[in-house]
Amino acid sequence: MTIAALGFAVALAGDACHVAAGVTRYEWDGVPVIWRSQVWFPFLVAGAVLLAAWSGRRAGLPAARVRTRADVVTGAALVLALYALTAVVDGEPATVSVVLCGAVACAIWSWWDPSAGAFAIALSAAVLGPVVEIVLVELGAASYADDALFGVAPWLPCLYFGAGAVASGLWAAVSASRSSRPVR
Amino acid sequence: MTIAALGFAVALAGDACHVAAGVTRYEWDGVPVIWRSQVWFPFLVAGAVLLAAWSGRRAGLPAARVRTRADVVTGAALVLALYALTAVVDGEPATVSVVLCGAVACAIWSWWDPSAGAFAIALSAAVLGPVVEIVLVELGAASYADDALFGVAPWLPCLYFGAGAVASGLWAAVSASRSSRPVR
Amino acid sequence: MTIAALGFAVALAGDACHVAAGVTRYEWDGVPVIWRSQVWFPFLVAGAVLLAAWSGRRAGLPAARVRTRADVVTGAALVLALYALTAVVDGEPATVSVVLCGAVACAIWSWWDPSAGAFAIALSAAVLGPVVEIVLVELGAASYADDALFGVAPWLPCLYFGAGAVASGLWAAVSASRSSRPVR
Repeated sequence: MTIAALGFAVALAGDACHVAAGVTRYEWDGVPVIWRSQVWFPFLVAGAVLLAAWSGRRAGLPAARVRTRADVVTGAALVLALYALTAVVDGEPATVSVVLCGAVACAIWSWWDPSAGAFAIALSAAVLGPVVEIVLVELGAASYADDALFGVAPWLPCLYFGAGAVASGLWAAVSASRSSRPVR
Repeated sequence: MTIAALGFAVALAGDACHVAAGVTRYEWDGVPVIWRSQVWFPFLVAGAVLLAAWSGRRAGLPAARVRTRADVVTGAALVLALYALTAVVDGEPATVSVVLCGAVACAIWSWWDPSAGAFAIALSAAVLGPVVEIVLVELGAASYADDALFGVAPWLPCLYFGAGAVASGLWAAVSASRSSRPVR
Repeated sequence: MTIAALGFAVALAGDACHVAAGVTRYEWDGVPVIWRSQVWFPFLVAGAVLLAAWSGRRAGLPAARVRTRADVVTGAALVLALYALTAVVDGEPATVSVVLCGAVACAIWSWWDPSAGAFAIALSAAVLGPVVEIVLVELGAASYADDALFGVAPWLPCLYFGAGAVASGLWAAVSASRSSRPVR
């Protein structure tokens, strides 16, 4: 529940940045809107985050770092910051925006959980997320201002990589004991 | 002493960014200037940082993380980076700048000290800081290029939130033993 | 070997950002190009990183934090993110770009290894790196769009400071045991 709500909230705030900056545009008419997103979008992301978190738990691969509830706040905030950053750098040359967002996403993964399991889920997210969005663009649901990557923005895989990395460890982190000992 | 000097230095460098970028402008004439700030500004901030640090110590609420002198450098650098970032994103739509700066501020709080006490002081700073600045704008001391929030910029509470979070734990961190053991 | 390869890769991706954004331009004709860099550039940086890493090991000063292989990924990603960031903020007033990049570089140093030894090597890099680039600009090899610092960009020392700080501890970090224990 917490995990889906987290995905929902980050999707809503991040997507508001994209729409406000003109990075993306919804193309279907008459669909109800929450903040600046058509209702289907945050639910889709919440489901995807839940799926990634469940995969991470299901795979049962050893995490390189044990994450607590406090870390979840940092992880979600960093992914949201990366989301908003993509809105800022959308007008830059693709090389700049992809290297910057890719480096930040890589730093998020290696800080959150530098394990092979988290990397595999992050990489899957970096492929599957954009593929789903490419299909949505093809269906006429939405469009990107910069559509250099088969209709979506070239930095999109980087954003999914960072989000997927954090999502992969959410189940364990959220289930962690509330009372975390002071860290020295 | 260290704490006030830190607040003074960060205020001076951060404010230089705001003035250089045209984000803020001093409106009173004939007031002496240090770097790009009128003298009253860095002293005001230094006093506010000292007050927040003293409140954090006085409240005596348990910190979730014990911070050392080395962490103080990181904390001050991150707050200054957020300060300079606000100068960069001032021209962006308010949704983008507020979400980006808010997410970074939240990450700073949850990294520095994800405790209820630090959150309370950060939140107080996010309210009181902008209120004081709104009064200063009303008095004609200064003005913001983007004055959407009662005369000040909409991202201003985010900057105060991040700064307040770090300030809340400065007393304990600065008093920490100089010789920090290597952390594994 | 790993260290030189890391320096080579970060230099190549970061320089691609600078060239793509028009921050720097290669001026010699007929020199072979890898991605967007003339071949001598990434080799020069790889050598410099190796030298800084060797100096750090040779000096044998105590590190304030023991870094592992996973930290190397985070450190390299953060330096690359700073590299790409300089391409984004190159058009900003010098005060803004220098304070922002300087604060990020300082945060990287104090996170990676807040020791006097790492600081000394970072500071040396912040002086020597730009000096070498100033000579290269004088020789007509390359040019900067913003040449306010004797022909190079004013934020360049900040980038070298962050890179030098991480490079100073690479030898120990890369030599660290592959199997890092889970960190709590």
